[in-house]
Amino acid sequence: MHDSAGILLTLFIIFVAAQIGGEIAQRLRLPSVVGEIAAGCAVGPSALGWVTLPDIATGTPLDVLAEIGVILLLFSVGLETRLDDLKKVGTSAFLVGVLGVVIPFALGSLWAHGSGFDWIRSMFVAAAFVATSAGITARVLQELGVLQRREARIILGAAVIDDILAMLLLGVVSSLQGGGAVDVGSLVGTLLGAIGFVAVIGWGGARVMRRGSGWLDKPSNPMSPLAIVLALCLGLAFLSMKFHLAAIIGAFLAGMIASETSQRHQLEEQTAPLLAFLTPFFFVVTGAKVNLAELGNASALWMLAVVTVIAIVSKLAGGFLGAITLGKRGATIVGFGMVPRGEVGVVIASLGLAAGVFDERIYAVIVAMSLLTAMITPPVLALLLRDRHASTDKP
Amino acid sequence: MHDSAGILLTLFIIFVAAQIGGEIAQRLRLPSVVGEIAAGCAVGPSALGWVTLPDIATGTPLDVLAEIGVILLLFSVGLETRLDDLKKVGTSAFLVGVLGVVIPFALGSLWAHGSGFDWIRSMFVAAAFVATSAGITARVLQELGVLQRREARIILGAAVIDDILAMLLLGVVSSLQGGGAVDVGSLVGTLLGAIGFVAVIGWGGARVMRRGSGWLDKPSNPMSPLAIVLALCLGLAFLSMKFHLAAIIGAFLAGMIASETSQRHQLEEQTAPLLAFLTPFFFVVTGAKVNLAELGNASALWMLAVVTVIAIVSKLAGGFLGAITLGKRGATIVGFGMVPRGEVGVVIASLGLAAGVFDERIYAVIVAMSLLTAMITPPVLALLLRDRHASTDKP
Repeated sequence: MHDSAGILLTLFIIFVAAQIGGEIAQRLRLPSVVGEIAAGCAVGPSALGWVTLPDIATGTPLDVLAEIGVILLLFSVGLETRLDDLKKVGTSAFLVGVLGVVIPFALGSLWAHGSGFDWIRSMFVAAAFVATSAGITARVLQELGVLQRREARIILGAAVIDDILAMLLLGVVSSLQGGGAVDVGSLVGTLLGAIGFVAVIGWGGARVMRRGSGWLDKPSNPMSPLAIVLALCLGLAFLSMKFHLAAIIGAFLAGMIASETSQRHQLEEQTAPLLAFLTPFFFVVTGAKVNLAELGNASALWMLAVVTVIAIVSKLAGGFLGAITLGKRGATIVGFGMVPRGEVGVVIASLGLAAGVFDERIYAVIVAMSLLTAMITPPVLALLLRDRHASTDKP
Repeated sequence: MHDSAGILLTLFIIFVAAQIGGEIAQRLRLPSVVGEIAAGCAVGPSALGWVTLPDIATGTPLDVLAEIGVILLLFSVGLETRLDDLKKVGTSAFLVGVLGVVIPFALGSLWAHGSGFDWIRSMFVAAAFVATSAGITARVLQELGVLQRREARIILGAAVIDDILAMLLLGVVSSLQGGGAVDVGSLVGTLLGAIGFVAVIGWGGARVMRRGSGWLDKPSNPMSPLAIVLALCLGLAFLSMKFHLAAIIGAFLAGMIASETSQRHQLEEQTAPLLAFLTPFFFVVTGAKVNLAELGNASALWMLAVVTVIAIVSKLAGGFLGAITLGKRGATIVGFGMVPRGEVGVVIASLGLAAGVFDERIYAVIVAMSLLTAMITPPVLALLLRDRHASTDKP
C-alpha cells in the first residue's frame, strides 16, 4: 500500500511541476513545453531529487505513462493532419528526411573519429545525432496553432521518413559493432516492411475510414467513436514497433486515419483532456533524465557545446536544403523543426552504453545534447513562426 | 524497446477486451462493468493468458494505470455529488457504514473460527469480509444515471465511513496477529486523523471552493480549471493514503470539492474521455486477478459458495438495517450497493498471505469471493434500480 502512495506522490509532483513550469515559460513568451522539460530537470535526480527514475527505459510505471502521453500527443497531431495535405508536400518531406539523416550522420561520424573513436564506434555515436524526436516539435506546432501550415506538414512527413532511415542506420551500426557482417537482404526486408507498414496503414487506412465513417455514427455501432480510435491508436503504436518503427509513428498514422472521419472535431475535443492529463508526464520525465553531475567539468562542457552545435547545424542544414523551395524563412523553420533529438537520442545513447560503445561521459554528453536540442528548438521555432503569422497561412 | 512493445500490446488487449466485454454485457442487459471484469478473467492468466500480472500490488505499470483509472472514476462520481446532499443523508449513511462493518466482521469471524482457525486468525480472515469497494457500485450508479438518488448518496457516504472503520479494524487485527498488544492510543490517533482529514477536506474544501470558484474563471488565472482539479485529485488521493485511507476516498473528496465550482459541467465533460480511456484498465485488471486453478476442486468450490453467501448476506443485512427508513426496496438497494468487495478484499487477502495467516486455498477463495461479489452486485443493482425508475427520483 505504501508503494502505491509513493507513486501517487510522484504523479502529483510531476503534474504540478509541469503546470508551474509551463506557466513560467508562457510568461517568458516561451512555449510551455520548454517549461515542462525544465521542470523535469528541476524535480529530477540531478537537482531537487523529488522524482527518482530507477533506470532508463525499463518499463517502469513512469516510463509507461510518459510513453502513453507522447503516443496520445502524436495521435492528436495526426488528427489535425489530412493524408491529402501530406501528399502535397511529399517531395520536400522526402528530401528533408533523407538529408536530415545523411548530413548529421556524416558530420557526427567525422567528429567522433576526430575525437579518437575508431570508425565503427564513430558511426554508432553518429547514429545518436540522427533521429529527430517528433514529439517536441509537434507539441510546439500544436501550441502555436500552425499545424495546418506547409512547413508543419513537411516536418511531420519528414519525421516519418527520418524514423525509417534512423531505424535502418541503427540496425547497420549495431551489426557492424557486433562484429558481424551487414546482412543486406535482411536490412532490405526491414526497410520494405517499414515502408509497407506506413503505406498500407496510411493510404489504406485513410481510404477505409473515409468510406466507413458513416458507420461510426450509426446507433447500431456498439462502441463509441472515441473508444474505437483509442484502440486503433494503441494497436497501431504496437504494430509500428513490430515493424521496428517508433510507437509514435503508429499513433500519428492512427490519428491521421481518424481525421478522415466526420467525427474528427468531436474527437479532437475529447482528446484534449487526455493530452492535458498525460502528456506532461512525457516532457517532465524527459527533463528528469538529464544527469547534470556528469557534466560538472570544463572538458565535458566543452564537448557538450561542440556536440550540440554539430547536432543543430547538421540537422538545420539537412532540413534547410531539403525544403529550400519554401524560401529561406520557410526552409529555416523546417530545419529547426527537425533539430530536437529528445528521447530518441536518449534511447540510442542507452543502447550504446549497454553495448559498451559509450563511456559514462559521452553517454551523459549525448543525453544532454538530446535534451538541449529539445529545449533550444521550441523558443526558436516560436520566434520564427510568430514573426510572420499571416504570410503563408494557406496550406 | 521490445519491452515497450510488449506493454503496448497488453494495453491494447486490455482496452479492446474491455470494449467487447462491456458491449456483450450491455446486450445481455447487464451493466458493462460486469463485462469488463469478465473480460479480465478471460484474457488473464487463468484463461487465455494474454495478460500476465507479475505480482499483485507491486506497483507495476498495469497496477498504476488501474489505480489511476479508479481514482478518476471516484473523482468523477464526486463531481456529481454535492456536500449538502451528502449531509442530508448523514445519519443513514453512518448507520449503514457501521452496521455494514460490524455484521460482516462478526459473521466472518464466526465462520472462520468454525472452520478451524483460532480467534485471532479468524478475525484477520473476517477483515477481508468487511471492506466495500466503492468503485464497482459507483460505476453502476453512474452508468444508470442515478447518482442523484437518495440511495446512491447513502451508499457513497457509507463507503467513506466503511473505509475508515475497515482501516481501523485491519490495524487492530494486524497488531493482534503480530502478537503485539493493541495500542489503543495510536489507534485513536489514527481514527481521529482519518476523520479529521475527511472533515477538513470535505467541509473546508467545499467552502473554500465555493468562494474561490470565480477565480478559476478569471483570465489572470494561469492554470486551466481541469489542470487544477486533476492536481487536486492526485494530491488528495496521495494525502488520503497518508491518513491510512484508500486513495479513492481522497479522489472522491476532490471531485466533491470541484463540484462546488461553476465549471462543474465543463469538468464533467472533460473528465468523460479520461474515464473512457483509463477506467477499463481498473476493471479488466481486477478480473484478471481471479485464479481459477486454485478453485478446481469440490471442497474449494463449496467453501467459496459458503464464503460468498456469508459475504453477501452480512453486508446486505448491515446496509438494509442501516437504511431501513428508506423502506424495504430502498434499503435493499443500499444493502446491495455495499456488497462488492472487489480490489479491497484482494488487497487484504494479499496482506494475509504475506503475513502467513492465509494459505493458498483460503487466499484464492477470498479473492474469488471479492470478485464474485463484484460481479453479482451490478446486475442485481441494475434490476432493482431500473424497476422503479420514476418512483423516488427526488433527492
